[in-house]
Amino acid sequence: MDRDLVGSLDRADDLAPHRDRLLIPDARIYLDGNSLGPLPADTEQAVRDVLDTWRRDAVLAWDGWIDVGERLGDELAPLIGAPPGTVAVCDQTSVNLYKLASAALAHTGRGSIVTDAGNFPSDRYVLAGVAEAAGGRLIVMPEDPDVSTIARHVDGDVGLVAMTHVAYRSGHLHDGEAVTAAAHAAGALMLWDLAHSAGAVPVALDRWGADLAIGCTYKYLNGGPGSPGFLFVRGDLHDRLHQPIRGWFGHDDMFGFHDEFHPAPSIRRFLVGTPSVIAAAATEVGIGLTADAGIERIRTKGRALGDLLVTMVEPVLAAHGGHVASPLDPDRRGSHVAVRHPDAHAVSSALRHSGVIVDFRAPDLIRFGLAPLILRHRDVADAVDILNDILERRLHHSFRSNRSGVT
Amino acid sequence: MDRDLVGSLDRADDLAPHRDRLLIPDARIYLDGNSLGPLPADTEQAVRDVLDTWRRDAVLAWDGWIDVGERLGDELAPLIGAPPGTVAVCDQTSVNLYKLASAALAHTGRGSIVTDAGNFPSDRYVLAGVAEAAGGRLIVMPEDPDVSTIARHVDGDVGLVAMTHVAYRSGHLHDGEAVTAAAHAAGALMLWDLAHSAGAVPVALDRWGADLAIGCTYKYLNGGPGSPGFLFVRGDLHDRLHQPIRGWFGHDDMFGFHDEFHPAPSIRRFLVGTPSVIAAAATEVGIGLTADAGIERIRTKGRALGDLLVTMVEPVLAAHGGHVASPLDPDRRGSHVAVRHPDAHAVSSALRHSGVIVDFRAPDLIRFGLAPLILRHRDVADAVDILNDILERRLHHSFRSNRSGVT
Repeated sequence: MDRDLVGSLDRADDLAPHRDRLLIPDARIYLDGNSLGPLPADTEQAVRDVLDTWRRDAVLAWDGWIDVGERLGDELAPLIGAPPGTVAVCDQTSVNLYKLASAALAHTGRGSIVTDAGNFPSDRYVLAGVAEAAGGRLIVMPEDPDVSTIARHVDGDVGLVAMTHVAYRSGHLHDGEAVTAAAHAAGALMLWDLAHSAGAVPVALDRWGADLAIGCTYKYLNGGPGSPGFLFVRGDLHDRLHQPIRGWFGHDDMFGFHDEFHPAPSIRRFLVGTPSVIAAAATEVGIGLTADAGIERIRTKGRALGDLLVTMVEPVLAAHGGHVASPLDPDRRGSHVAVRHPDAHAVSSALRHSGVIVDFRAPDLIRFGLAPLILRHRDVADAVDILNDILERRLHHSFRSNRSGVT
Repeated sequence: MDRDLVGSLDRADDLAPHRDRLLIPDARIYLDGNSLGPLPADTEQAVRDVLDTWRRDAVLAWDGWIDVGERLGDELAPLIGAPPGTVAVCDQTSVNLYKLASAALAHTGRGSIVTDAGNFPSDRYVLAGVAEAAGGRLIVMPEDPDVSTIARHVDGDVGLVAMTHVAYRSGHLHDGEAVTAAAHAAGALMLWDLAHSAGAVPVALDRWGADLAIGCTYKYLNGGPGSPGFLFVRGDLHDRLHQPIRGWFGHDDMFGFHDEFHPAPSIRRFLVGTPSVIAAAATEVGIGLTADAGIERIRTKGRALGDLLVTMVEPVLAAHGGHVASPLDPDRRGSHVAVRHPDAHAVSSALRHSGVIVDFRAPDLIRFGLAPLILRHRDVADAVDILNDILERRLHHSFRSNRSGVT
């Protein structure tokens, strides 16, 4: 690849100024923003503001904090194509998945759930537990199924189809509208996991007609390590779905201290308990800078980075027994590119040792996360050059690390 | 009360130096440390350290963070009389209650749960949902039942007795050992909510033979607004109980990305998802300074503060139609004192307006939280003087606020 062309892509990058709002890790090239996004420059001040308020007002500060989950939800909603009042930031991703999947099966009166082998193991664990508790089972399709395959698996026992919009391994980007329609055609609800979508690719929950969604805020949304998850429930379902964890934040009159539980007729009924205000403050900064950059511009740059990587890495891999494992069509690919190589584990270690932070996914995938807010085109080009150098000189042969990183 | 005596109590207070480790709120007298404990002086640095690590190492920092929930659990364990490896800090209190109560009913094969009307409404909401899902019901005894009353309610359908060790309204301190024995005698498991105990009164889960416990870290443990909850499961139950939310943090081989869920044979099986490391860092500071002060010394001072308050406030209340609603026996009282007054709501507002931050609990209770790490005996004496002034001059008649605060 002509380095002049790469330089010109960076000079034309209208997201370049947003890079200064994130503090780039010490690693030379950080290609793991899809595991943990980097620290925004404004986060420290936001957290300090919460500590100051806590110090000064203590319990009285809750007047200003009590609706933080709904407020952050409304800030996040436009990034995933959801109307105001349908999204909340709360709990962890797996807890939110449990709540919504349980509610979906109770609502439909069916016990089984359909997902695919490309969905997060963590999601599949939760979903299998929910289905078994409902007397059904988790039906696991092969990885990255097409719409007709999905439709074929949704029978009258299936109350929920749960898919991750951008598959965490392959980067496969599902057709949100078509899959949702296939679930609905068979009488099932549709739940999207947006962990690898929110902040990376446009999502149109409202237009798709999606019923439910969950996701995390610590990947492309830069909310920090273990920052809270989020959930979406379509508005007309708010007073018809009942999630199993009856928390006081979900009570219609939460400060009334009633004897009986009466769920709020809003997104709040899907909340449970008192949220961490410190964690929320950090999360809000991450959501805010993503919103400022604009999800369409982020996607445009993410596609360009992906295309550049695919174009450059294909000949390198072809010369050393590997290939691109993600869809080559950028319309069918999220914001990371996975490559397959028989020595993927050692190559990942060698890349990390050289300051290129990638993820290894067993048995043979290397995942290049392309977070558009922090990466320049030259970073992608440099990463491929380093990969080429490792493979040419067989530098990876001396690596035998066992860590696989965090999804 | 002789002010010289109050002064001598403060001069003899060997916990006085620990007061400097907490930043006292702007209010003149903060009597709501049992709703939200104040900010420790070291918290800002601890949070900044996490942000620095996140900035520098990004995803690679997880090597040092991955066991944070178990590590904080081990730091908390001595404060509640639990052996190492039996406590974890994770999720929110209500989520932890849901997990453990569900696991208890599944384990016993019984559907009903016994609690009392003095338990948190939030706990009762969760417990009712768990019992109904198991085909049973929540049996609610009158507030603050004695042991024989509890024993009488536990029949063969009851799989779990769930009590809050220090009742959030009355301050009644239950007999942990006797109540646990009563539950066991009827074949039920025993779960203690330690929200108003941890960091305030000694708890001896191991000696009591308790099966399960939960609690929060934002009250007497000063972990911050919405800081994570904790849970305890007795060691011999770890491989026999199954909680319903199968999260990847509970997997025996969490980085193995397996198709099937195999719960860890340890406290880790009760974890779910990725914890907020920022929130955990703040929580660790709070746990640490409580451990440094020593729970026995904290309890000794808490009793002294409670006795001082009761002695001083009784004649004031008696002259104005009120009385102490908490147990007068300090052995049967936690670290707050509730007083009953027909104008409790307005009196609470007047106290807050005068810089004395108390809680109102409908319909007629004022709650004086006595956090031993931040309060001097003179603060308690001053609060009673201010209360007396309000009642004498009927200053509360002009207050009609509606906020009731956070439990």
